Amino acid sequence: MKLVGLAVLLVASLCYAQDSGDFRPATTNVPDAQYPRVDSAGRAEFRFKAPDATAVKLNLWSGPKLDMAKGADGFWTVTTPPLVPGLHYYTIVVDGAEVSDPSSHTFYGGGKDASGIEIPEAGSTYYLPEDVPHGQVREIWYHSDVTGTWRHALVYTPPGYDEQTRMRYPVLYLQHGAGEDETGWTRQGHVNFILDNLIAAGKAKPMIIVMANGNARRAGATPPAPGARFGSPEMMKAMHEMMMAFEDDETKVLIPYIDAHFRTISDREHRAMAGLSMGGMQTFQVTFDHLELFAYIGGFSGAAMAFGGQPFDTKTALNGELADPAAFAKKVHLLWIGVGTDEPAMMHTGIENLHNALTEAHVQHVFYESPGTSHEWQTWRRDLKEFAPLLFQ
Amino acid sequence: MKLVGLAVLLVASLCYAQDSGDFRPATTNVPDAQYPRVDSAGRAEFRFKAPDATAVKLNLWSGPKLDMAKGADGFWTVTTPPLVPGLHYYTIVVDGAEVSDPSSHTFYGGGKDASGIEIPEAGSTYYLPEDVPHGQVREIWYHSDVTGTWRHALVYTPPGYDEQTRMRYPVLYLQHGAGEDETGWTRQGHVNFILDNLIAAGKAKPMIIVMANGNARRAGATPPAPGARFGSPEMMKAMHEMMMAFEDDETKVLIPYIDAHFRTISDREHRAMAGLSMGGMQTFQVTFDHLELFAYIGGFSGAAMAFGGQPFDTKTALNGELADPAAFAKKVHLLWIGVGTDEPAMMHTGIENLHNALTEAHVQHVFYESPGTSHEWQTWRRDLKEFAPLLFQ
Repeated sequence: MKLVGLAVLLVASLCYAQDSGDFRPATTNVPDAQYPRVDSAGRAEFRFKAPDATAVKLNLWSGPKLDMAKGADGFWTVTTPPLVPGLHYYTIVVDGAEVSDPSSHTFYGGGKDASGIEIPEAGSTYYLPEDVPHGQVREIWYHSDVTGTWRHALVYTPPGYDEQTRMRYPVLYLQHGAGEDETGWTRQGHVNFILDNLIAAGKAKPMIIVMANGNARRAGATPPAPGARFGSPEMMKAMHEMMMAFEDDETKVLIPYIDAHFRTISDREHRAMAGLSMGGMQTFQVTFDHLELFAYIGGFSGAAMAFGGQPFDTKTALNGELADPAAFAKKVHLLWIGVGTDEPAMMHTGIENLHNALTEAHVQHVFYESPGTSHEWQTWRRDLKEFAPLLFQ
Repeated sequence: MKLVGLAVLLVASLCYAQDSGDFRPATTNVPDAQYPRVDSAGRAEFRFKAPDATAVKLNLWSGPKLDMAKGADGFWTVTTPPLVPGLHYYTIVVDGAEVSDPSSHTFYGGGKDASGIEIPEAGSTYYLPEDVPHGQVREIWYHSDVTGTWRHALVYTPPGYDEQTRMRYPVLYLQHGAGEDETGWTRQGHVNFILDNLIAAGKAKPMIIVMANGNARRAGATPPAPGARFGSPEMMKAMHEMMMAFEDDETKVLIPYIDAHFRTISDREHRAMAGLSMGGMQTFQVTFDHLELFAYIGGFSGAAMAFGGQPFDTKTALNGELADPAAFAKKVHLLWIGVGTDEPAMMHTGIENLHNALTEAHVQHVFYESPGTSHEWQTWRRDLKEFAPLLFQ
């Protein structure tokens, strides 16, 4: 189950036993679209109009490509085996063109506005709108001298923020993954509903959450040439430059902007950072370069040099900050890493190795495994649900 | 130039004279996408990968379908004549499948997440992010007893709203068109930048702007059967029920919610409503049914019974409120209608007839024509730029 191609397919006989075929339109559909639809076993039925096409495939990004079959009405259809709960990115491949499904809403992922389908998780409401006080998600625009551009960020303010005008709040900086942007944690992740529910239950402190665009480019820098190969020296250099530009933008521009425009508690004891995948890598880079700014650190399916299972030397890695575990534990109140049990081996082994190295070196940390989920948003929703209650306590 | 198929094509020799071919990626592209690209004459070049397709067309919704030509690399391309400035919805038709372009961001229109391309307007910056104080756009969720659902709305708060905590603000309720949703005025319309710029220039009063989802359905009501014909009695009934559900949701749930959660001035003298196309129809219905709630009214390419050029009787229409023009002018401080000169005849003639009927009956109002634009967002951006300064003065 560690292969990406299989991870999304939970072909459990238990699920097949509930063979109700009670299909209903997915919650991610555009209004009144009848397809795609999902049954209580998690199977999804897709339907796509392409009367003149010769081959149409469904591409579930965390699963296999499935051939769709053409009906006499010009619609192509396919029904999947039961899928793991959560939001799955997907595209339709029609005669070689990879496109979004007009029946589903789009979500920015993989560097484009791609389709998403939500498979409900039976009994789970922690990421859904419940009858509790709701916070707001605010779009802000700030000018960055680092990038030389107006940058768009989203800011969750907890319920009561506008009413309790003397109250100040701690802040979590929360980052998306590669190919995604600042909208991911709200639209795909449901960050607001997760926090609304945790706060209402008394499980998490009311906090501000800032979601920035992690794809930063320094003013005047040229992008890598179109078509540059992933992993090529040019791309590695571009990635490094992006990481450094983001670090400068966050620490020199965004944090001062947020502290000036929101009622924050602006010391390091009340500032956290976390991120998923690439955002987890960014979190470890930014926080360990700036422990004067952060006291809580989270890596969701991504953390310092944790991909691929390279050896992790707690004596030298991360600016040597872990070399003295007792001193580190005094400074950083939470070092949290998480991964889905069904993530691709490179991710899972990498995070597990990091966990093992930290354990052996007696570095205080929390390790969480999301059961049955892959390198997808359900893992990161669960990560946030587990991580947020440990902040600012 | 009144035909939809021609409206978007401004084939002016003046434009062709600037035949610079200085193509640059459109601002509506996903990050780092090189296509579509636009030159200073407003021509747009599209590129779409579909190696196995036999026919690919570009469908500019306000213009004609254009055949794309296949290159040896599997990419299909086409370059348009100069286009009217503004945001144009478009789709790609690949072997009969109508889909979005993976290179462009999507915008909810036509009932789906469709592609959009921005053609800059030379010398116009009123709808762009400038070096002025910026307001916020806030996502809120409110529970509606009318629809029985959690509803999502967007709220623009002007610059300084969080700092000047004793200040209270007037409110404009601003609606999108048919097939669109509450995101339209921000994403397509740039409402926040328009207001930021007007407020910074001292041309508009700082105000709160509330953008709700106009597609309301009463709790328990069944949607029209899929495939119900537009204009059929079933669809007309569904449309009427939607209008009434929206009116109840706005007046009984949303306005009280906004007045309870934002620092509004909650009397009718400080409340306006406007909308585009279907939103303009909704505006006239809601405001004339509730003149106890609103003192400013705007219809952008849509107003009371103004489509198709039916006779408009100021004595009887709109609950008879216009029958006494002097009394009406005392009650309603602004009745504003606008239309693009190049809108389809049904729209343009309808609004013009309304304007003429109001003029003949001496009903005080403002009539604005957006030069050279059609039933598209550039018309509505201009409408807002002209309308907002007249509010709450």
